[in-house]
Amino acid sequence: MTDTGDAVTSYWAAVETRDWDTFGALLAEDVVYEVPQTRERVRGRAAFTTFTADGFPGDWHITVQRVIGGEQAAATEIEFADAGVSQPGLTFFEFGPYGLISRITDYWPEPYEPPAGRAGLAERY
Amino acid sequence: MTDTGDAVTSYWAAVETRDWDTFGALLAEDVVYEVPQTRERVRGRAAFTTFTADGFPGDWHITVQRVIGGEQAAATEIEFADAGVSQPGLTFFEFGPYGLISRITDYWPEPYEPPAGRAGLAERY
Repeated sequence: MTDTGDAVTSYWAAVETRDWDTFGALLAEDVVYEVPQTRERVRGRAAFTTFTADGFPGDWHITVQRVIGGEQAAATEIEFADAGVSQPGLTFFEFGPYGLISRITDYWPEPYEPPAGRAGLAERY
Repeated sequence: MTDTGDAVTSYWAAVETRDWDTFGALLAEDVVYEVPQTRERVRGRAAFTTFTADGFPGDWHITVQRVIGGEQAAATEIEFADAGVSQPGLTFFEFGPYGLISRITDYWPEPYEPPAGRAGLAERY
């Protein structure tokens, strides 16, 4: 595991345990968080910590499925489970000085039906 | 750029140029491709090359936005543009012997409206 992989593993552990001090300590003060699907953006460690702590009420749980640690960047795949329903979350991280997370991009993909034209080319599971 | 980062950059270049020989040469013979959102699965280099070559008709283009190369794994973020509409594609790659791609997991997230409860916690862009 690389340093960036360790950092994002700690990030998700802090989210799962609602440990907002540890969470904030992993972030650059000017961190930028974006959700391209909703075009939401949050700027700054304080605002983003509040967004994460207060924006998702409920007794949800996170399981990290995959961590890819690169040079100054990382990606994760998580399972977000809430009230018996679970969905994947995909997150890209960029790192700045001091190994702090400077940019986070989150995706929350939902199920859809594939086009009929490729039905013969894949199995379903 | 790591070796895994190079390999997935070559993968997308081969898709963009419809160079199916180069594409196939990057894949393990028993590669497994999955789309969790549709629960589609394709097994094997030949079937997956056919799926990619024939399953997506049209004059689409791919722009690689982000590559994260890790140890025996990589992730990419692309923009898939077709007839003036573009959408993100997120792909996780695993590597096996000889540096060949052994597993590919694709996500195609679509726009959605955020829950009203967090409207005050983020800007929109």
